Amino acid sequence: MSSNPIKKWHQVVQEKNFELLESILDDSVVFYSPVVFTPQKGKKITLMYLSSVAMVFNVDSFSYTHEVIDGNMASLEFELELEGIHINGLDLITWNKDQKITEFKVFIRPLQGLNALHKLMGMALKY
Amino acid sequence: MSSNPIKKWHQVVQEKNFELLESILDDSVVFYSPVVFTPQKGKKITLMYLSSVAMVFNVDSFSYTHEVIDGNMASLEFELELEGIHINGLDLITWNKDQKITEFKVFIRPLQGLNALHKLMGMALKY
Repeated sequence: MSSNPIKKWHQVVQEKNFELLESILDDSVVFYSPVVFTPQKGKKITLMYLSSVAMVFNVDSFSYTHEVIDGNMASLEFELELEGIHINGLDLITWNKDQKITEFKVFIRPLQGLNALHKLMGMALKY
Repeated sequence: MSSNPIKKWHQVVQEKNFELLESILDDSVVFYSPVVFTPQKGKKITLMYLSSVAMVFNVDSFSYTHEVIDGNMASLEFELELEGIHINGLDLITWNKDQKITEFKVFIRPLQGLNALHKLMGMALKY
């Protein structure tokens, strides 16, 4: 388990270290947004989404609550509060033999939380 | 891993066997809806929700696509199409030492899929 990229991902989130993030993403990584169906393909757009999410989620209330890791997949559950709204989410992360992330999928519940995130991410992605 | 309740859960989904479902739920099980924040506590309401979801998801396009199991937690990803809308979801399931399910949390993406499910579940729960 020491060779998976999850420990480094936690470091990215804690330090907002987007250079480290870039180093653990495969060139062909695909990002799946909680809002939009269409897969976002490639390192550049994935970096943009993940760094935006990391900035929007950069609040004291954010924490990872559960972790399920098996083979080359991890399911990381998190919680936070944004503008008084509870958000419960999950990152589903897949990596390859080089320990580079190939898929990053984000799920958000409940509906009110997803709507709040949609609004804030829309704003974050404008800048 | 043979002693976890996930194999039986798959049997519940395939056979719509709600007696089997009842036998793998702990009395104090809590259901977390993808739509509403408030936890739904107890076997009766959890059975109602899960059997409604199983009926709404009872379409040919439904399939579990990935499974991450570690310790007493499982993360099961699924896909389906409802009325032409793609739904990608995830069941996060926790169980106790008696192999009874104590938490069942459902996440849905994208936003359009969650809205479609909200509408259909609202209808399913009326009957």
